[in-house]
Amino acid sequence: RVPELLALCEKVIDLSGDFRLTDPALYPLWYGYGHKREDLLKEAVYGLPELNRQEVAAARLVANPGCYPTSVLLALKPLLMAGANLVDLGDIIIDAKSGVSGAGRSPKLPFHYPECSENFKAYRVAAHQHTPEIEEQAGRLAGEKVTVNFTPHLVPMVRGILSTLYAKLKEPLAEEELLELYREHYRGEPFLRLHTPPGLPETRFVWGSNFCELALRVDRRNGRLILISVIDNLIKGAAGQAVQNMNIMQGWPETEGLL
Amino acid sequence: RVPELLALCEKVIDLSGDFRLTDPALYPLWYGYGHKREDLLKEAVYGLPELNRQEVAAARLVANPGCYPTSVLLALKPLLMAGANLVDLGDIIIDAKSGVSGAGRSPKLPFHYPECSENFKAYRVAAHQHTPEIEEQAGRLAGEKVTVNFTPHLVPMVRGILSTLYAKLKEPLAEEELLELYREHYRGEPFLRLHTPPGLPETRFVWGSNFCELALRVDRRNGRLILISVIDNLIKGAAGQAVQNMNIMQGWPETEGLL
Amino acid sequence: RVPELLALCEKVIDLSGDFRLTDPALYPLWYGYGHKREDLLKEAVYGLPELNRQEVAAARLVANPGCYPTSVLLALKPLLMAGANLVDLGDIIIDAKSGVSGAGRSPKLPFHYPECSENFKAYRVAAHQHTPEIEEQAGRLAGEKVTVNFTPHLVPMVRGILSTLYAKLKEPLAEEELLELYREHYRGEPFLRLHTPPGLPETRFVWGSNFCELALRVDRRNGRLILISVIDNLIKGAAGQAVQNMNIMQGWPETEGLL
Amino acid sequence: RVPELLALCEKVIDLSGDFRLTDPALYPLWYGYGHKREDLLKEAVYGLPELNRQEVAAARLVANPGCYPTSVLLALKPLLMAGANLVDLGDIIIDAKSGVSGAGRSPKLPFHYPECSENFKAYRVAAHQHTPEIEEQAGRLAGEKVTVNFTPHLVPMVRGILSTLYAKLKEPLAEEELLELYREHYRGEPFLRLHTPPGLPETRFVWGSNFCELALRVDRRNGRLILISVIDNLIKGAAGQAVQNMNIMQGWPETEGLL
Repeated sequence: RVPELLALCEKVIDLSGDFRLTDPALYPLWYGYGHKREDLLKEAVYGLPELNRQEVAAARLVANPGCYPTSVLLALKPLLMAGANLVDLGDIIIDAKSGVSGAGRSPKLPFHYPECSENFKAYRVAAHQHTPEIEEQAGRLAGEKVTVNFTPHLVPMVRGILSTLYAKLKEPLAEEELLELYREHYRGEPFLRLHTPPGLPETRFVWGSNFCELALRVDRRNGRLILISVIDNLIKGAAGQAVQNMNIMQGWPETEGLL
Repeated sequence: RVPELLALCEKVIDLSGDFRLTDPALYPLWYGYGHKREDLLKEAVYGLPELNRQEVAAARLVANPGCYPTSVLLALKPLLMAGANLVDLGDIIIDAKSGVSGAGRSPKLPFHYPECSENFKAYRVAAHQHTPEIEEQAGRLAGEKVTVNFTPHLVPMVRGILSTLYAKLKEPLAEEELLELYREHYRGEPFLRLHTPPGLPETRFVWGSNFCELALRVDRRNGRLILISVIDNLIKGAAGQAVQNMNIMQGWPETEGLL
Repeated sequence: RVPELLALCEKVIDLSGDFRLTDPALYPLWYGYGHKREDLLKEAVYGLPELNRQEVAAARLVANPGCYPTSVLLALKPLLMAGANLVDLGDIIIDAKSGVSGAGRSPKLPFHYPECSENFKAYRVAAHQHTPEIEEQAGRLAGEKVTVNFTPHLVPMVRGILSTLYAKLKEPLAEEELLELYREHYRGEPFLRLHTPPGLPETRFVWGSNFCELALRVDRRNGRLILISVIDNLIKGAAGQAVQNMNIMQGWPETEGLL
Repeated sequence: RVPELLALCEKVIDLSGDFRLTDPALYPLWYGYGHKREDLLKEAVYGLPELNRQEVAAARLVANPGCYPTSVLLALKPLLMAGANLVDLGDIIIDAKSGVSGAGRSPKLPFHYPECSENFKAYRVAAHQHTPEIEEQAGRLAGEKVTVNFTPHLVPMVRGILSTLYAKLKEPLAEEELLELYREHYRGEPFLRLHTPPGLPETRFVWGSNFCELALRVDRRNGRLILISVIDNLIKGAAGQAVQNMNIMQGWPETEGLL
């Protein structure tokens, strides 16, 4: 459908996973099908504005990011781009939790009300198709290979994603230094909010909004950095981000129509 | 399937609505199909043990009652059988509320988690197929025609039914007199509990249990009797009641296997 | 506090129940305290704009209505003002259901998450303090005494009220005639929506909004009119209605700041 | 109160945290008070039967474990006791999620229904008082110091804990080898169930039960072992485990009164 749409329209924003990965060899492994349009794959821009604002502005085909990768990459970006070797890039753990609307609108048994309510579970452990999307983009930001462990969970609520990330600091760094790094990095970003300790983001804080909220903690006992990131999977994780991309592609104010 | 099962087994308890109504003419009106086995319909016993314990004991085919009618008929029975004309039988209002498992296990859009959670609605207003089942059985208990208004609602919870009934007292009666009537009537019933004011039943009180809990109030300002009845729709409203019926049909202790 | 505020400000909108009733004698009966400022009680305007728009515009003290009465009175108004004797005014039954935020923000055991979730119950049966508020305003609209049965219930969800009302039609009236009456009556009202059968309102339809949505059904089998009304108890049932009143009192566009 | 109870009774099972830690110096750091009865602290047995069955049998004072540590230690035990150096003991990450009843029954704002429902959040990141309890017991099992990162989260559901643990394998080990290790280790344990891939535990599987259910996965891409553990925080995480301990202390069948 994307090729057909491109024949009809000037610009396309695709919300599926079809153009999110750069390496076509990853499609059979993670999506279970071979990619037939490597030319378009090469052309497609990964539509996370905080990473690729300029490329999005010039793009004909934008691949709107997955909901989990959005929450994860926004949490990692300042760290990965810091230049210095701040954390061990082969040892990043992502424990993500999503509301049920993340599974889409088609009624299926695992998302039937009586099956979901009052229940919590992990799924596709170490096998979720958002893993290579995170690794590709994180690697691009870091300028070297990044490997992650990614484990998604299902929360009995309609919407919202909270990702908890664990990274190993290479050198002891104070919480305040890292906070300052994040603050500087995201200065001026219209849809990012950083919590100052003891504040922590909660999914309801971004309900219906295009914001991503972040917090970080350093566990001085073992040199771990813990990052917490929340988005509304239906907004910043899907339709809202598509609107943000459209605004950029059309040269409109980036925040138009978004809360 | 019931005819086929009866050819194979001695006794059948049917949990569908196929044999709950006595009058075959009601099937086209409320279920949308004509009944093909009026002989079995005549033979079938309505399996609400508190109404028909002896008939169930002798039955070959038991029609396990609907979940709503179970909660409603147990609330009305002492009133309808009181002999005196206690309430206006043409003016009984039933406002019923059910958890989502009442809609069955097949995943459909209205019962998809994101559609149900944080939402409350009425459905099939004045058109639910449990209406004639209630009227037939209530009429049998009263010995005259009973008409009801029946409005079901969907509650964002997995299980439980609460029915609120409103009946017009023909003569002023004190709450305590009515309570005493109910107490006497249900003395010895293994699965009934009557709340004494200010107590009121809640659906969680019967979670996982075969009990029906009742309370009543008289609004002296306008002579209304208000009855409140709760059951677990999956137990007393379905499988538990089937077990109770099986126990009776087999001559086993009626409470066997039930909480 | 209201008297003190009136000394400080020109106009006050009170969200408590202190000035909602007209008859001071009702306060000891339903609120448990005697009213000390009958002068202000006389002056206060009942702030349901759809009933009292002009009086609100000129008021110094507006009593913002209760959440339940808002949902109920908007459902009844066209009926009560129809002039003809459409329904039996001594026989109106209101079965209301509210989300937990209706109980306020102070943490109390009945509203503790583990006590509310997966539970449904009735409370203050035939004894809720919103009863006289409904009766007074309904009586004023009808021009004669109105008596209601009012039974509130607690729904395991954060926000939303759905009220189901049952009234006895004095003459047989077709659903379509009544719908037309409602359509005409509410033509131009900015915050009312009427559902056309088979449509029915659900609480999520007004989530975060100042709208009241209505539907009606006639049960021809027994001449009952069934009305269904939903509002968001935090918006049209509280703060949103206060904003609507403020807009009217200030001469601003009535819908300003409201969805 | 424990000292007073010990004066009155032969045996005491304490469900608080007062006697869970071995090292009195940890109390000021994690609980904010100094311990006044180091003699009793020394005497107290940590009441996780799967770790200390014999000591519990002989104990006068049993410290019933915390809910989180129960879920975590049962997941780690076979690994820690394996003798070989299977995982990096300084690099264990625990991402735990609990239902709201884990916060106790006193109504407080963060556990008020409207604050919890449809929300997910982390809390006490790298600062929860169950951290030293896990480290002490894990260290005892391993025979050397164990350091963990422990981050708890609040799930909008009444009961259940799911802990996701991430450990770094020192040598590449196949999933099946580790599964076999767990199977052997827990053979005969009455309250443990191990899921075979692709099975994964969900909190509802242990609702109301004293069971702990486990699953494990190896992420071959980066040599991480992922463990998933579920319990009902009110049963195996509290009262049920106390009953299990009582059964052992009294010489009764260990499973008596438990599901």
